[in-house]
Amino acid sequence: MVDLSAVVAEIAAEMQAAPDRGVPAQYIPGLRDVDPARFGMAVIEMDGTCHLAGDADEAFSIQSISKVFALTLALGAVGDQLWTRVGREPSGTAFNSIVQLETEHGIPRNPFINAGAIVVSDVLLGRHEPREAIGEMLRFVRGLAGEEDIIVDRAVAAAEMETGHRNMALAHYMHAFGNLKNPVERVLGFYFHQCALAMSCRQLALAGRYLMARGVQPGATAGERGRSVVSPQRARRINAVMMTCGHYDGSGEFAFRVGLPGKSGVGGGILAIAPCKASIAVWSPGLNARGNSQLGTLALERLVQRTGWSVFDPG
Amino acid sequence: MVDLSAVVAEIAAEMQAAPDRGVPAQYIPGLRDVDPARFGMAVIEMDGTCHLAGDADEAFSIQSISKVFALTLALGAVGDQLWTRVGREPSGTAFNSIVQLETEHGIPRNPFINAGAIVVSDVLLGRHEPREAIGEMLRFVRGLAGEEDIIVDRAVAAAEMETGHRNMALAHYMHAFGNLKNPVERVLGFYFHQCALAMSCRQLALAGRYLMARGVQPGATAGERGRSVVSPQRARRINAVMMTCGHYDGSGEFAFRVGLPGKSGVGGGILAIAPCKASIAVWSPGLNARGNSQLGTLALERLVQRTGWSVFDPG
Amino acid sequence: MVDLSAVVAEIAAEMQAAPDRGVPAQYIPGLRDVDPARFGMAVIEMDGTCHLAGDADEAFSIQSISKVFALTLALGAVGDQLWTRVGREPSGTAFNSIVQLETEHGIPRNPFINAGAIVVSDVLLGRHEPREAIGEMLRFVRGLAGEEDIIVDRAVAAAEMETGHRNMALAHYMHAFGNLKNPVERVLGFYFHQCALAMSCRQLALAGRYLMARGVQPGATAGERGRSVVSPQRARRINAVMMTCGHYDGSGEFAFRVGLPGKSGVGGGILAIAPCKASIAVWSPGLNARGNSQLGTLALERLVQRTGWSVFDPG
Amino acid sequence: MVDLSAVVAEIAAEMQAAPDRGVPAQYIPGLRDVDPARFGMAVIEMDGTCHLAGDADEAFSIQSISKVFALTLALGAVGDQLWTRVGREPSGTAFNSIVQLETEHGIPRNPFINAGAIVVSDVLLGRHEPREAIGEMLRFVRGLAGEEDIIVDRAVAAAEMETGHRNMALAHYMHAFGNLKNPVERVLGFYFHQCALAMSCRQLALAGRYLMARGVQPGATAGERGRSVVSPQRARRINAVMMTCGHYDGSGEFAFRVGLPGKSGVGGGILAIAPCKASIAVWSPGLNARGNSQLGTLALERLVQRTGWSVFDPG
Repeated sequence: MVDLSAVVAEIAAEMQAAPDRGVPAQYIPGLRDVDPARFGMAVIEMDGTCHLAGDADEAFSIQSISKVFALTLALGAVGDQLWTRVGREPSGTAFNSIVQLETEHGIPRNPFINAGAIVVSDVLLGRHEPREAIGEMLRFVRGLAGEEDIIVDRAVAAAEMETGHRNMALAHYMHAFGNLKNPVERVLGFYFHQCALAMSCRQLALAGRYLMARGVQPGATAGERGRSVVSPQRARRINAVMMTCGHYDGSGEFAFRVGLPGKSGVGGGILAIAPCKASIAVWSPGLNARGNSQLGTLALERLVQRTGWSVFDPG
Repeated sequence: MVDLSAVVAEIAAEMQAAPDRGVPAQYIPGLRDVDPARFGMAVIEMDGTCHLAGDADEAFSIQSISKVFALTLALGAVGDQLWTRVGREPSGTAFNSIVQLETEHGIPRNPFINAGAIVVSDVLLGRHEPREAIGEMLRFVRGLAGEEDIIVDRAVAAAEMETGHRNMALAHYMHAFGNLKNPVERVLGFYFHQCALAMSCRQLALAGRYLMARGVQPGATAGERGRSVVSPQRARRINAVMMTCGHYDGSGEFAFRVGLPGKSGVGGGILAIAPCKASIAVWSPGLNARGNSQLGTLALERLVQRTGWSVFDPG
Repeated sequence: MVDLSAVVAEIAAEMQAAPDRGVPAQYIPGLRDVDPARFGMAVIEMDGTCHLAGDADEAFSIQSISKVFALTLALGAVGDQLWTRVGREPSGTAFNSIVQLETEHGIPRNPFINAGAIVVSDVLLGRHEPREAIGEMLRFVRGLAGEEDIIVDRAVAAAEMETGHRNMALAHYMHAFGNLKNPVERVLGFYFHQCALAMSCRQLALAGRYLMARGVQPGATAGERGRSVVSPQRARRINAVMMTCGHYDGSGEFAFRVGLPGKSGVGGGILAIAPCKASIAVWSPGLNARGNSQLGTLALERLVQRTGWSVFDPG
Repeated sequence: MVDLSAVVAEIAAEMQAAPDRGVPAQYIPGLRDVDPARFGMAVIEMDGTCHLAGDADEAFSIQSISKVFALTLALGAVGDQLWTRVGREPSGTAFNSIVQLETEHGIPRNPFINAGAIVVSDVLLGRHEPREAIGEMLRFVRGLAGEEDIIVDRAVAAAEMETGHRNMALAHYMHAFGNLKNPVERVLGFYFHQCALAMSCRQLALAGRYLMARGVQPGATAGERGRSVVSPQRARRINAVMMTCGHYDGSGEFAFRVGLPGKSGVGGGILAIAPCKASIAVWSPGLNARGNSQLGTLALERLVQRTGWSVFDPG
């Protein structure tokens, strides 16, 4: 029997000492200036037991991890109709590639590359004001985590707006194909704010519990009944998309090394799901060549080795 | 508790009646002439219980499913060095695309697209004669299935050789980048014979048991000890590559709908693995737009719905 | 000796009767609503003799033909430094493709595809207001043509602004690579107004005379001396870029069939130069599959056959 | 009045002293081992006057320059039907790119990139033996040059055969699309022998005279009548294809700097045509980044500056 708290602490200690930490994203101050020595990890089990280590309580910019929550909301809003506007295949290219959009007529490959997430933002925006859509997203994530102090880092969102020419290009390009309904500025305004959600590993692992638990968010206390967020089938399917598309053009590598559904963000966070076992969040700001957290991936690889939590071996 | 035999029989009956069966591969007589009304299914549980339905005992051309066995042998031969010559990322393009090879300098994206499998063939060929390599492959697959009457359909192999200009182009192209060590004709000779393995669903499911069972091929009788084919870690990793890359540019779709690691072949077969639960083979010659078995995929989707066997829900 | 006036009249008559006229550009009202029966032609010889036929005096939207004048101005402003920000190779892709920009890091292939012309607009804008830059362009073209009544069709410019998502995508994309210095809105504001220049065939042929005459714009009267617009070398070079890049992905075809440097616009106009012989403008709004004027090309092909004016046969 | 002999001698002297000579092609011994200090130039005027300088009489491997003669023969054999199997647009990619073939279904962009020239070889081969086709090509080129001692360098052809995996890939790929009628080995056997033609600058300039002179090969002596090789229109059109496609992905640059139709070869030669003025051949084995002769291009640029021979200024 594995002593999970010991394993988590052990991995955190190993990560603190790791020599090759990758490089934080450089394109905006809010990400560039984060101390690369940071490392946090949170593992929450099915019974609610929570194992924390390192900077597990420090908030960071979750960036693309927010795409998991946005996808969940969008499927709730429009159901499988969503898939007429965005695919669910791995992209085989960088997270911000525009080439695929040209050959596939403005339909992004999946909701976890930037183009796909922008379409999802457009769906969520619907006829609302960006402010309302951001509010809805915040309420959703706060509800999932059971914590009210999750916020949007407006400085990060503003910096993204200023430098986000590639995302603007993607958005205008999809608009040209008719795959965006709202004005580009409004969609991106919402998109950048959603990406600028600041959460700690603990909050992120809390928010991800429904994906571990067949779509049900566990109750706050042992006696309290859980709340269904999505159906069990939808939970499986979101996990499947995370498995095949959650790490951009490093998704195959992550499946190979870690063997769990996961979603990374350029802020250095990763949310990983061991179905029916644990909801896991790691954070370390240095990125590898594919744009995924260098130490976050390594920490998850070691966690899986020591716990045996691959989906390819249900134990 | 699900009555698995009833479920398998039920699905087979549904598939026999299915109106939209796809279209068999047309490029060679050996595939084109197969009766599209065929459907077979075999499910083998961890304890060896075997459920058969439809044409589960009829041999068909396994084609790309052989890439799973070839990958297993090549990892045995050269270990993780293999990954310097072939990647493990989804391709985002058709199974026989040459574009990716140009931009990535002759390194194919994964061992399950044609280019990657040709590199694996080159590794297995090593300094042997093609005949010897085919013999080794046959012995391996016969040993896995525990049946000696598995053969290579030489008419199919010969027809592939005659029409295989795209594969020849891929091979020469990789040779130009130095990623093929043997002459193209020899590598393709071996490759086409490997693809022309003729197996029944029952044999295929038998051969795949090590991937269900942490790398161990179960003994022939209840008392007999199993034989380790690969390490548990390697079994997980082969499953991971099947999950992200096993259905060409329909891998995301298969993960989404079925949620199991699987490998399809243009002959209409699919091998799917429910880790620690079952080794599954289906066959129906009609293909969908991505080149994967139309009814084979549907049958697996229904099997998973009725058994709850997604890797994303270990039950 | 060819009777040029007769030839021009003859061709115009043939074009009026031509059954296959192509289809006008459909994306904005100002282009979509033009009568496809229109055809105009103007040929101005070195000595100033002017041959007109059909609707040669009717103004149309010159669109991309303006890129020739913009390139001329930009080379005057920054000289050969321009070529660090835009190439001079044929693109091998559609006029509005974004793929090439990704593989070549935001440097457009040539100044005559949209992306390249947007960079040229950015150069011309410099530190000016869009309004000033448009004013300068108008003055330049009016001066070349010797006519003051050339205007910008503001309705066309406004419609382009509203629907120009592809061009916005191109602009933002280049901005992301640092190859745009001004805000996208300002650059495109100028770009769309420049494209909305309304000129007649006669005015266009007049404006193009410097490219026929070694860079010198002939005087208004026989006695008056000409004015040097560009050096003879630069005139040759602009002609060279028109020859290899002036018809998007139909440039090779135009060189093959017509054999003259030329620049087409999506409004159905073409400016063609027979060096030391004639400046030629044709207009017919229906486009061929490559986006170039169907009858304009045919008219030029016949003109060249009957006059022998290929640059590949100086006569 | 320019003293052409002096100009040619002067340029040759400048080239002998040039510091940056490029690098000879490295992929086969026959090209790799050529002394980079070599430089030759031959200019033949309409009246037959011949100006030679440097190593103008030394034979070198003409490589892709042979594609001009092959195109001429193929148009003679099948006329404009040729254009159903090969385009006439600049490629926008490297000379041996395979990407374009995938997106355009096996139709190469023009007859001067390798894929296009392989199709032309297939056309010329028709039902002949490769040996006969090579014989016909030799007779044609010898007849054009009026010299019988032009040969095929069989060592070069053999080395190309051994290392030509990219060309084999291109050929098999087009075969897969049905755009090759003969077996790949036979087509490439012919193709590589044609590329291995060894000619001096003098011989090459002699052979190219029909392209300068409206399709007529001048008589051997002043009194003798010329012989029509192609029609004037076809001569213009071959020149047009040379202008837009003759220097691979450096065609725009060559048109910009030199302003003449030209065709380069990886052996370091260039054939350039000043219509109605001169047939010009230069040779220097060092190549620039685009695979065209570094000093050959520079020499032509200077020749044109000093003679004024741009097609964009007929003088």
